[in-house]
Order: sequence, then structure tokens, then C-alpha cells
Amino acid sequence: MSNSFTFRLIKTDGEARRGEISTPHGPVATPAFMPVGTQATVKAVLPEEVRATGADILLGNTYHLMLRPGAERVAALGGLHTFMNWPHAILTDSGGFQVMSLAQLRKIDEKAVVFRSHLDGTMYELTPERSIEIQQLLGADISMQLDECIRLPAERKEIERAMQLSLRWAERSKRAFESAPVGRALFGIVQGGDDKKLRIESARELVPMDFHGYAIGGLAVGEPQEVMLAVIETVAPELPGEKPRYLMGVGTPEDLVEAVARGIDMFDCVLPTRNGRHGLAYTRFGPINLKNARHAEDPRPLDDTSAHPATRTYSRAYLHHLVKASETLGAMLLSAINLAYYQSLMRGMREAIEAGRFDAFRAQVKEQWARGDR
Amino acid sequence: MSNSFTFRLIKTDGEARRGEISTPHGPVATPAFMPVGTQATVKAVLPEEVRATGADILLGNTYHLMLRPGAERVAALGGLHTFMNWPHAILTDSGGFQVMSLAQLRKIDEKAVVFRSHLDGTMYELTPERSIEIQQLLGADISMQLDECIRLPAERKEIERAMQLSLRWAERSKRAFESAPVGRALFGIVQGGDDKKLRIESARELVPMDFHGYAIGGLAVGEPQEVMLAVIETVAPELPGEKPRYLMGVGTPEDLVEAVARGIDMFDCVLPTRNGRHGLAYTRFGPINLKNARHAEDPRPLDDTSAHPATRTYSRAYLHHLVKASETLGAMLLSAINLAYYQSLMRGMREAIEAGRFDAFRAQVKEQWARGDR
Repeated sequence: MSNSFTFRLIKTDGEARRGEISTPHGPVATPAFMPVGTQATVKAVLPEEVRATGADILLGNTYHLMLRPGAERVAALGGLHTFMNWPHAILTDSGGFQVMSLAQLRKIDEKAVVFRSHLDGTMYELTPERSIEIQQLLGADISMQLDECIRLPAERKEIERAMQLSLRWAERSKRAFESAPVGRALFGIVQGGDDKKLRIESARELVPMDFHGYAIGGLAVGEPQEVMLAVIETVAPELPGEKPRYLMGVGTPEDLVEAVARGIDMFDCVLPTRNGRHGLAYTRFGPINLKNARHAEDPRPLDDTSAHPATRTYSRAYLHHLVKASETLGAMLLSAINLAYYQSLMRGMREAIEAGRFDAFRAQVKEQWARGDR
Repeated sequence: MSNSFTFRLIKTDGEARRGEISTPHGPVATPAFMPVGTQATVKAVLPEEVRATGADILLGNTYHLMLRPGAERVAALGGLHTFMNWPHAILTDSGGFQVMSLAQLRKIDEKAVVFRSHLDGTMYELTPERSIEIQQLLGADISMQLDECIRLPAERKEIERAMQLSLRWAERSKRAFESAPVGRALFGIVQGGDDKKLRIESARELVPMDFHGYAIGGLAVGEPQEVMLAVIETVAPELPGEKPRYLMGVGTPEDLVEAVARGIDMFDCVLPTRNGRHGLAYTRFGPINLKNARHAEDPRPLDDTSAHPATRTYSRAYLHHLVKASETLGAMLLSAINLAYYQSLMRGMREAIEAGRFDAFRAQVKEQWARGDR
């Protein structure tokens, strides 16, 4: 295993790609789903359980960690991998997205975004350079450039302004990353909202900067799925085939399948854990809302063919009981069950691509979802 | 391993007793601590984690389970062991204590206690016979007689009235238990508040009824430790040596050591899990409040000599961070860490009794607690 970041494309099937990323903290089989470890923990799941679901890599949130416990403190404690007991790969975002969605009193200009912490009101300045510095202090195997995420729908002029600023910040991020330890990677982020021309322009400016990988940002902000898929179809052909492609913040199981079908290699999303905490289970036969009274006396497990022990062990009646009683174990089990389903879906896609039967796999999982839970 | 309830006294050291209970769901090494699984879950701990801490037996709460999901429903789903995925021994309480502490509109008379559910206002009637029926539907390896728990301090007349009622309910419970499946056990409960004469009278009436074991009830309700220890010293000599003795609802680590020193074999208590959820860790060097800012940069684990992986893996700084950030993982880790400490304390006592050095062990653990966390 290489100690440095590399990406190897193993097989393609249509646009779908089967690959492997090497990182200083181990390999990542792609297409890969990254569970979100917002505050240095995947909510309600033990790290060894996260690993057991099949995750090779987690996402950590720069915004949350810079506020609490602070990047310098995490570094003094040995870095994020040690701090959270996750010895495998970690990707950190740049903080830009959460600044826009969570922080108060944002002021953005050429130099930086200035914001007030949602926790205690402290003022912070986040520059592209500081974002990279934080991510290096955390010890991220893969860092993301700082970008400006805007809400959709937006005026074309506003989308273009943010996209151009993000390009200039991409350059500054790249320069700041030059002093990062050998082996770590930095990804650029394609912006441009739902505007095809702007997306292409963004990609064409970023590719010559020679990032280790490329993300598609600014999606999963409430737009219809067809808008998201159209953006992927616009951007993917512009990206170099030998580098990984990461669709940020996506998505539902169907989003993942459709995005892989269009050449995406990496994903992150809070859906499996957030919805797990709210009583929703993702399964081969679609989502199951365990709050529903019809599960109260159902002795069946969620899926007795699952490779994940909890998925085939606990009855729906028990999970219903835990959810109704607001017991923490309900959130724990359903978060892990959902992560396991997501990882099994990714594994299924990887195997299907290797076998050259991705289209058949895609049709099969959709048929099962449509069949529903009976 | 026997399939029936038996108790074998292996060794005594002073008043301290090392024994083994056999149950239809496996052996229980005594002195034993039973984690509390109130609503068919030990809060915030996976059942396999509870087992990994060393627990042989859990306590389930009849009051909670009769209200939700209901005893008949649990029975239809295969019983409590299957329902909550705990294939080891289970003791259930009678419901009496929670009726007094949680339910509304209690009315108690010779026949029954009638109460209003704290969940939805439904009226319930709990008789000694129904309590036993519920516990048999749940499938408890060890059931408890229904008793009346009163708050201390109380008038002697009131204590005596409740004690006498509890004796009559003991007889009714015993009769109702006659139809229980072979191998299961029923314990009687000594009441009598802090009154020595009443405690002795209660014990002397119960012993001829020939229960499988005897509990001391009505303690751990806020009285000083010396009152509790005095009651044990009064009651223990009245109980048959060949049957297990269970001190209900107790206690702190020091309570456990002092009670074992006075001949107690079994305990249950919510402290390790409840306090874990509130940021308190029990360790060899006493309790550690992880909310305290002094832990924020402390890279040391709670106890690097612990046999429990999480106790020696996660830094105090990380646990502090999780507690400050109200992350579920903090409650999960500290609940498991505390259960592991309690079980290691019980294991230490068992080994010390076997080796005939219980007094030295007791002095040593107290010295370590007094030394504190440095």
C-alpha cells in the first residue's frame, strides 16, 4: 500500500468507474460513500461500528472542528485520526458550506469570509490559506479548497461572481497547500450553480491547476434530482479521467446510483445517520419509517439477507419500540443499519462495474426499491 | 450448566460471599452487578457491549414494559431476551417501585395498586398476581414479588402498614408463581424502612415462605449510607445462607464494596449509565467529571490499565469534547466505560473473596479512590 495519495482506475462500465484511492491512512475503494463525522464523531455510531459497515473514509467538518475543539487543539492531541479513534482515511471539507448555512453575520470579500460562531458568538475569519492550515492541523488525507457556496435559485450574475471568487480561492488554496506534508491531497471544487456554461468554465479553469481530484460543489441544496444529474453530465466530461470525482453532500440511494452511472467516484451525506436518528431505515426494499404503528408487532428483521448483523437481528417491532420510546439505542442501531445499507449499495455498484453489469445492477436495485417493503 | 435456578455458595471471606447462580439463560457469578435495561435497552449501550463489560444479568423494569410495548406484545415477540437481543439472564422488578416514583394518581389498597400511566394517562391495575403474570410473559429468569415501597423518612405506623401489606403480597406472589415455568425463580423482598424491629419481622415472616432468594427493598431512596449499611447488618443474619441476597437499587462503587462486605450478592443501579450520560466517569481513582475544562487538552485515557478497550483508548480531551458538544457518542462511551468499571469492581471483589483477601482489596480500592485522579 502506498503512503501517498494516488488514484487508480481499475475498470469502467459505461460512464461508471471502479477505482482505488491510496491515502496515508489506507486505501479507499471507489465508488465510495463517506459517512459524515461532523464534530469528530459519526453521530451515535462507534468508530469500530462505522468501520464494520465497510467505510474506508470519513468526512470531517472544518467549520465545526475549528470552533470546537479547535484545530490547534486537535493537532496538539495528535490529529483528528487519533483524536476520534479512526485510523483510516479522512477527508475534510473547507468550512465554506457550513459558514453559509450555520454561521451568523457573514461578510464575504475577496480576502476572506468573516462570521460569527453559532456556538458562542465569537468572530472568526476564514481565508483560503487558513482553511488549508486548519485541514493540515487536523491531518486530513484529502483537503478541499475553500469555495463560496450560494443558495439556489440565484441570479446568473451572482452565481458567476461566486464561481469566479471560488476559482481565485482555488489558486490560493493550491499555493497554501504546497507546504502540506507529502502524500496528502487537495481537491478543487467546480462551482457554477445550475448554469451549464458557468460549470464548464469553472471546470476548464480548475483542471490546469492540477488538483489531486475534483469535486462538484453547490448541489444537494434542494434542487430537483434532474438538475443535479444535468450538472454532473455537464461537468464530468470536462474532468480528467485519471483523477477522482467527488459529488459533495449527495445523497439518497437513488442519487448515488444515478451519479455513479454518470462517472462520480465519491460521495458524502448526512442522510443515513440523520434519518436513522429520526426512525427511518434504508433497506433493499426502500426506506421504512419505523415510527409507523404497522411495525409494532412485526417480528421480522429489516432484511434477513443483510451482511450487517444488526440489520438481520433486531425485529421491526423492537426498532419501532425504541423509536417510539425515544431510546438512544434506536438512533444507534438505525444509524449503523443505514450506513451499512449505503456501504452495501456502494459495494454492489463496485462489484457490478468490475463485472461489466452496472446497468443490470442499477435496474435491479431500482426494481427492489419500487417493489417496496412488504 | 443447569437449566434451573440454583445458587451455589463457593467461598466466604468474613461476611463477603462468592457464589454462582444458575439460570435458564446461563450462570451469574456473584457478587453480581446488574445493569438496568429500563425500556428493554440499557440506555445508550449495545447489548453486545453490555455483555463485553462482563455483565451476566440485566434488570428489566416491569412498570415501563407493561406500559410500552406491553407484556403480552413482548411475549408474542418471543419474550424479553429475544426482543432486546440479550440471551443471558434477566431479572425483572415487580413494578412497585416505579408505580410509586413515576405514576400518577396512585390508589393502593389490599387488592392492588391502581395508577395512571405517566405516558398517556391510561389507568392500570397492578396486583401481585398481575405483576407475576407480566414477569412470566416477559420471560424473566428471576422475578420479584410485588411490594409497596414508601418514601423515607416516614412514620413507624406507615412503615409497618406497608411492610405488612408487602408480606401479604409476598404470599400472593408466591402462589401466583406456582404456575411459572420450571427453572425460573422468585425473590421475596424484605421491607421495614429504617426500623430494625420491622426489618427483622419482615425477614422472619418471609424466610419460611421459601423464596429462591431475598431482596432488601426500600433503600437507595435518599437515606444516608450508614442507614443503608445498618439495615443490611440487621437483615443479612436473618436470611438463609444458601440463598442469594439482593440489595435493590444500590449504588455507588463504595456502596457496593460495603454491602458485599456485609454479605450482599446482587445489585442493580442506574448510576453508571445515568451519570455516564451526564459526563461522569467512574474509575479506579474515583469519579471524574469530564465536563470540567481541565480535561480539554488532556491526552491521557481514563485508565490505561483497564481491561475495557474504550477506557484505555479515548483521551480525556476527546471525551470532554463529546460531552461539551452533547454528542451521543459521549453518552455511549461513558455509559459503557462506567458499566465496565462496575463490572471490574465486582470481578475484583469476587477474586478477592476467592483468595481470602477481601479486606485487603476493600482497603486498596478505597485508598485508590481517596488518592483521586491526578
